[in-house]
Amino acid sequence: MENVPIIIGIAGGTASGKSTFARNIDLKYKDKLTILSHDYYYKDRPDLTFEERTKINYDHPNAFDTDLLIEHLKLLKQGKSIEHPIYSYTTHSRENYTEISNPSRVIIVEGILIFENKELRDLMDIKIFIDADSDTRLSRRIVRDVEDRGRSLANILEQYFTTVKPMHEQFVEPSKKFADIIVPQGGENTVALNMVFEQINSILGIKQ
Amino acid sequence: MENVPIIIGIAGGTASGKSTFARNIDLKYKDKLTILSHDYYYKDRPDLTFEERTKINYDHPNAFDTDLLIEHLKLLKQGKSIEHPIYSYTTHSRENYTEISNPSRVIIVEGILIFENKELRDLMDIKIFIDADSDTRLSRRIVRDVEDRGRSLANILEQYFTTVKPMHEQFVEPSKKFADIIVPQGGENTVALNMVFEQINSILGIKQ
Repeated sequence: MENVPIIIGIAGGTASGKSTFARNIDLKYKDKLTILSHDYYYKDRPDLTFEERTKINYDHPNAFDTDLLIEHLKLLKQGKSIEHPIYSYTTHSRENYTEISNPSRVIIVEGILIFENKELRDLMDIKIFIDADSDTRLSRRIVRDVEDRGRSLANILEQYFTTVKPMHEQFVEPSKKFADIIVPQGGENTVALNMVFEQINSILGIKQ
Repeated sequence: MENVPIIIGIAGGTASGKSTFARNIDLKYKDKLTILSHDYYYKDRPDLTFEERTKINYDHPNAFDTDLLIEHLKLLKQGKSIEHPIYSYTTHSRENYTEISNPSRVIIVEGILIFENKELRDLMDIKIFIDADSDTRLSRRIVRDVEDRGRSLANILEQYFTTVKPMHEQFVEPSKKFADIIVPQGGENTVALNMVFEQINSILGIKQ
């Protein structure tokens, strides 16, 4: 009992503050926990040309090799190390190297669609959904994609309204139902973050 | 610092599981905390006849003497005891006796509209909104009002659609935005309840 890892899932729409929330947990516990991103598990599609790969709907559950993530989580739960794939957003394919993740007492899984798959979500002990209004999410996404990725506004909006938003409404938003807690203003919500810290402290046996 | 009480607000719509959630906290910590219900503070209206009082919209913010609740919370924060009113649902008026609440390290305030008033919510350190689908809430309310209060279905539904639902949409639902965490399936959500327990344990200095 004592040594079975606790799996905490952190889901939420694009630019909801989900990654910031997960990063804040990571920063506090560093080597004491393992973080896996569903994005690592984008399917490799060597059968498609680069041009075809850029057109994949990356916001659809089928874009992910979720079975591999499930297998990896089961191995981590058994105390075994895993080698997770790395996805390159430049080439839209898996890198030819992997990264080792070692088992730990607390495992964080994050991604927009991690509550959508029943087998995956049933592996989780605590399911946290980071929520934000759709206009807040869109504005953050525009700023991020313009500043960090040098994309044009027209291109960002076209992708947003053809895949991101429809997939959000079809898969992400309905999966909120499966959350144990929903965290509004996830990026800056220190009260919720402190509650998660207290829970992890307790699991790790850390005294205040 | 050490001795300033922490105020936890628990809001949510009618029959959302809010009271069950608060009761579960109460059962665990019993004498270590103080629970105040906004319902204790329904305004006394001796100027109205009984018939008129039955027609008051009890789901509107104006039905509550929220200033008195605010005053009481400030006194409890200063380490002073308060005497809160008791409301009689039979006579629709305040009882002529009060109940003493003593200060404690953790104070719980619960009610459908406690996040609606800015001065009140600003007194809270942790704001929890218990959420449930409207059909789930309605079905629970029907069962409760038929079984516990012997009311007719027609009467329950009439009240629900003329005051409860409109007030929920106008005041309760929008106040969800102010929550630090939102708890779906509040009554049976043991994961969220455990997180709140961990937080209170930490405040009270209770080791697991």
